[in-house]
Amino acid sequence: MRSVLISGGCGFLGSHLIDRLLLRTDLERLVVVDNLWTGSMRNIAHIDDPRLGLEIQDAESFVSHHRFDEIIHLASPASPLWYMREPARTIRANIGGALNLLTLLKPDGRFCFASTSEVYGDPLVSPQPETYRGSVDCTGPRSSYDESKRCTEALLFEQRRVADLDVRVVRLFNTYGPRTRIDDGRAVSNFIAQALTTGIVTVYGDGAQSRSWGYVDDIIEGMERFFWRDPITHQGPLNIGNNCEISVLEIAEFVCSLVPGSRIEHHAPVPQDPTNRCPDLTLARQVLPGWEARTAYQEGVRMTLEWFREQMAIGSALENRAAGAAAL
Amino acid sequence: MRSVLISGGCGFLGSHLIDRLLLRTDLERLVVVDNLWTGSMRNIAHIDDPRLGLEIQDAESFVSHHRFDEIIHLASPASPLWYMREPARTIRANIGGALNLLTLLKPDGRFCFASTSEVYGDPLVSPQPETYRGSVDCTGPRSSYDESKRCTEALLFEQRRVADLDVRVVRLFNTYGPRTRIDDGRAVSNFIAQALTTGIVTVYGDGAQSRSWGYVDDIIEGMERFFWRDPITHQGPLNIGNNCEISVLEIAEFVCSLVPGSRIEHHAPVPQDPTNRCPDLTLARQVLPGWEARTAYQEGVRMTLEWFREQMAIGSALENRAAGAAAL
Repeated sequence: MRSVLISGGCGFLGSHLIDRLLLRTDLERLVVVDNLWTGSMRNIAHIDDPRLGLEIQDAESFVSHHRFDEIIHLASPASPLWYMREPARTIRANIGGALNLLTLLKPDGRFCFASTSEVYGDPLVSPQPETYRGSVDCTGPRSSYDESKRCTEALLFEQRRVADLDVRVVRLFNTYGPRTRIDDGRAVSNFIAQALTTGIVTVYGDGAQSRSWGYVDDIIEGMERFFWRDPITHQGPLNIGNNCEISVLEIAEFVCSLVPGSRIEHHAPVPQDPTNRCPDLTLARQVLPGWEARTAYQEGVRMTLEWFREQMAIGSALENRAAGAAAL
Repeated sequence: MRSVLISGGCGFLGSHLIDRLLLRTDLERLVVVDNLWTGSMRNIAHIDDPRLGLEIQDAESFVSHHRFDEIIHLASPASPLWYMREPARTIRANIGGALNLLTLLKPDGRFCFASTSEVYGDPLVSPQPETYRGSVDCTGPRSSYDESKRCTEALLFEQRRVADLDVRVVRLFNTYGPRTRIDDGRAVSNFIAQALTTGIVTVYGDGAQSRSWGYVDDIIEGMERFFWRDPITHQGPLNIGNNCEISVLEIAEFVCSLVPGSRIEHHAPVPQDPTNRCPDLTLARQVLPGWEARTAYQEGVRMTLEWFREQMAIGSALENRAAGAAAL
């Protein structure tokens, strides 16, 4: 039986991964460490499982006498809006988190880490294979995230070299889906939230910058197989994403087509917004045979939109109830 | 009057910088934080100045009630031999050190950091201007150093963006000279130490890989002017180095020519040893008018060799005395 720690488990990806972890019959205990900076209790509120324990703490300072068989380190904001506001905290969460959590791992334990396609920066090569060294401005406005992910990879692969650490590192490309924060700030969720509220969908620049949009269920499937389900010897880094490049503008237009009355407004481009990002999935196909990000963006965006609609309905029902209670 | 903290002050560059700091008439107090991992008390043993205080502690956990006007963060091993042995500790020294020392800076204080030409990795562009984003393998055997320097740059420039921090970041190219450890492991000092002891000078690969070798006095002059002496608005990153590229083999041959009976032996190449490294000094010439790394390698190597000879003479005199004492 295995004891697992997941940092950032109340976040978007973390909470989906917890749903999968709790399906494991070999799981004895699951400790979730989350400081609720960008994560939310709502993401795991549906869970009723005695194996789960929640610790509302920073990954970089969490202390425990328990040692874990597996640690999954996800603690970090992932949206530029959030990490650009608190760069030092972002660096502490990633690297400080990894350094601290490594001390809680059993000697033969496995350490899994969610790295990012941002390690490729504004790539001069497309699609990006894992061997591409990247083009990151280490003094730029996105550097706290990009460089702390890069440095955490360095830490883990160096611990493998000097101490034979069993590591699993995925590089995740753009992911979207239910449980994204309404104020997350990244394109898909932002477009949906804007279409459903103000009706004005803001596209930065001309919208020609492309991304490979991965629907959360597909991405989680890849992570689950790589982190614990499949017997795999490769330790990463491993690109996980959808390699179907779609422009930001196309997504915005599709969202508008689903929400009557919404329309696009163009704003000034964001500094150092990568012009393209697309995973080379050659290695993923070898390591995870049969895996693919199958969900077309039309389907994924529809499901995400439905979820946002439900959340907003629940939100306004609660507000109405609160207003009613206040009126009594 | 200014209070200054220098981390890594017992190291090669740190101790030379301390000599310059103590010439300042506006210096009230100089606190040296060093854990003596690669630094040595011998490097500052010649100093007798009541303004200097030494704290033998890790930069990442040093605590003080005092707040400083200037902090100079140098704590880190700089030789691959040393940082490849303890990668996690290297990351803690650089990033953990910077995160911790930032808390000891006065609100309007200045934070100076010694970054490295290693942020350029194995460069595809030569010479390397500060705008070159580098080619670093963030999973490679040199990554703990390269990536923790990159990430510390990210931290500092992001703190400038969000909190208007006054930063000074230099990217130092290969530096050599007196006070390098005899077991440092980098080329110039290694060749000299080997020539003077075993007589066999080991060159990895064919020795055609080139470096720009900066003599310590020249490099320290540039750092001093940039960190505190000149009124400069540019905050970095700033390349500091000698841009005269010399092959490793040429240095080895020169050392052998100075030490009768010594000879070269070729060994297998080191993994991911950069093939070339040369600073583009356009910006340095603007920011530090008149500054240049003037010392030719022939002169610099001679002076370094003399210093090593003296140290070894002192060392063997001490050994003889100890042996004599034991014989009594």
